[in-house]
Amino acid sequence: MQPSPVSMDYDHPACRAIGRKIRAQAPFVYGLTNYVAATLSANVLLAVGAAPAIGAAPGWASGFGARAGAVWINAAGLINGSMAAMQVAVAAANASQVPWVLDPVAMGAGVAEYDALVRQLAGSGPAVIRGNASEIMALAGGASTARGVETTVTIAQAVPLGRVLARERNAIVAISGEKDHILAPDGQMVVVPGGHRLLTAVTGAGCALGGLIAAALAVTQAGPERPVAVVAVHALYARAAEMAARNAQGTASFAMGFVDALSRLQQTAG
Amino acid sequence: MQPSPVSMDYDHPACRAIGRKIRAQAPFVYGLTNYVAATLSANVLLAVGAAPAIGAAPGWASGFGARAGAVWINAAGLINGSMAAMQVAVAAANASQVPWVLDPVAMGAGVAEYDALVRQLAGSGPAVIRGNASEIMALAGGASTARGVETTVTIAQAVPLGRVLARERNAIVAISGEKDHILAPDGQMVVVPGGHRLLTAVTGAGCALGGLIAAALAVTQAGPERPVAVVAVHALYARAAEMAARNAQGTASFAMGFVDALSRLQQTAG
Amino acid sequence: MQPSPVSMDYDHPACRAIGRKIRAQAPFVYGLTNYVAATLSANVLLAVGAAPAIGAAPGWASGFGARAGAVWINAAGLINGSMAAMQVAVAAANASQVPWVLDPVAMGAGVAEYDALVRQLAGSGPAVIRGNASEIMALAGGASTARGVETTVTIAQAVPLGRVLARERNAIVAISGEKDHILAPDGQMVVVPGGHRLLTAVTGAGCALGGLIAAALAVTQAGPERPVAVVAVHALYARAAEMAARNAQGTASFAMGFVDALSRLQQTAG
Repeated sequence: MQPSPVSMDYDHPACRAIGRKIRAQAPFVYGLTNYVAATLSANVLLAVGAAPAIGAAPGWASGFGARAGAVWINAAGLINGSMAAMQVAVAAANASQVPWVLDPVAMGAGVAEYDALVRQLAGSGPAVIRGNASEIMALAGGASTARGVETTVTIAQAVPLGRVLARERNAIVAISGEKDHILAPDGQMVVVPGGHRLLTAVTGAGCALGGLIAAALAVTQAGPERPVAVVAVHALYARAAEMAARNAQGTASFAMGFVDALSRLQQTAG
Repeated sequence: MQPSPVSMDYDHPACRAIGRKIRAQAPFVYGLTNYVAATLSANVLLAVGAAPAIGAAPGWASGFGARAGAVWINAAGLINGSMAAMQVAVAAANASQVPWVLDPVAMGAGVAEYDALVRQLAGSGPAVIRGNASEIMALAGGASTARGVETTVTIAQAVPLGRVLARERNAIVAISGEKDHILAPDGQMVVVPGGHRLLTAVTGAGCALGGLIAAALAVTQAGPERPVAVVAVHALYARAAEMAARNAQGTASFAMGFVDALSRLQQTAG
Repeated sequence: MQPSPVSMDYDHPACRAIGRKIRAQAPFVYGLTNYVAATLSANVLLAVGAAPAIGAAPGWASGFGARAGAVWINAAGLINGSMAAMQVAVAAANASQVPWVLDPVAMGAGVAEYDALVRQLAGSGPAVIRGNASEIMALAGGASTARGVETTVTIAQAVPLGRVLARERNAIVAISGEKDHILAPDGQMVVVPGGHRLLTAVTGAGCALGGLIAAALAVTQAGPERPVAVVAVHALYARAAEMAARNAQGTASFAMGFVDALSRLQQTAG
């Protein structure tokens, strides 16, 4: 029998504690991501007090992969970078026990060549895999249902396969949606309520969350603290989205208000 | 004798009808564009309710080129992508009868090697070619007058050659400027008044219009509905610019207000 | 004995004069930069009235490098472009006596392969080298202290080596920080006070300054006017940051207000 899932939001002290750690430690996080999302990802990380660097200039993948507090690999970064660079960054991170996040953007959208590369990355030891319902379902071996970078299935449909993925890859699996679901390898699940649908109208918002998860990994140790850290940044994201929605005049002022809210929440995190 | 051109703005019911169709159908549109403009392009498409994907990760150009409702090819995407990928996307779109837009950014700026590639794309069957006056004039075989990505000639100077281009390429030609001019292959011309000069101070605003035209193509059938669809999104763009100009404190708040206005116009399009 | 440095801010008539020249001449400036910073760089340049083009589409590096009023080379552009393209742009600029700016992003962050390329660019004749304290110190042969793209040392620590770099490279060296320091090859130094720490929470703000310096070079002659032009754009930047900080609700509205302020200052520059 499945236990009913725990629900956590930003009011939980554990969530604020992770935010404070990021602000206090200003972790250096390194990302290979796509140019559509890169600027927002960097600004989200700066807003919370982290120190991001992005991209694979000569030597960076191995150097920054090993030196960073954590790494995030956004598979859609293959639109502007090579699989080889991603493999170098992953190998460097793994060799230095630097945890890394995989964001399987557009997995299961019907492009077999791309999906095979994403599956290869998923098999290379990510600490966290984050995506929408279609992406997680496809990565776990389910049907291909994504439409470009968008999901066409619900979280409820993705959770059973997400559990399998978490166990098989020994990774935390985070599924973004109306309510975010974070699944630990040991079967525990935490639901993060809230957020706002306008977040789906801001390009790169999901991708930036991948970077934020990396920041959370960078300030925590492997073990039981990690799933909490992943929950915490989802809760921070959800709260900031709710705050931004209050004064938004449309999708762009929402996006601005969202990053503003992240920076304000972090300044007052105690 | 040339008939006097028809003028259409966003108050025309046909314009609102296209907006409603985009919102209702949320078309998947696929773009190969440059990293300077990519984020705004995606956000503009999300604001109107479309579902964009951008870039050529392995397999995407053929897969998404065939699967999308429409494709847009921004020639300045050659700063971060290959001509080969553009050709694959174009071939896939053509084979699946997916209409596509060509944006000949910086055509006629004095770089022969680049201009030859853009000309090759223009000869590959775009449904729509959109650009500023210098770009359209150069693409039609006129003088090279562009200064980087900016025009140095007026719409009036470009219209005669634009007509030739529309007929020769059997494509709708849209020339952006103080008043946008949309030219159909059969010689019809529609003028879209309004808009705002601040739009020229927002990088990628023209490029994003290419994506928006793709969204309009995705929800209409080949034939007489298409020129109207192209007019409609220019009219939507112009109205949103006017709305944004009212509260702008400078070029950046104008840009934000512009995307906000696009999203609000689409929510209230009836 | 070192003379005490001159201090100049935006109220100095010479600063406003440079702003007016940029607005009046709308110089075409060409940049090779990274996709994280490219959009903001273009928007900053458009806000002040310049006409930017970015990236190395086929033929652009040689064509635009020779034709532009000035060029800026952002070394982190190696995440999305080749060293070869940078060398072509630099050679074209040098051959046409087009001045260019080097921004040695992330120099001295511990990646030897990358640092060697940046050093090679620094030896290719830039008119201006701009960076943060860690980057300038490392480029001048000092210790590697950068943490990704961030500095870990103070301006005071970097100034002595910055002077050496200015003299050895016969270039103006601009060090960004709490107070910006501009060092001329002849040993003169000007300090620009003001600005705002929020600027460090906006990704690409430093990179965009490289583009703005190029705009200033494009409207001035080689010789004593050049260091003043470099000072002037730093003073413009600092003033805009102060204005933006007054109404900022967080890091993103600060970024918007900053570009807005740049455009307003330029409109009222007399």
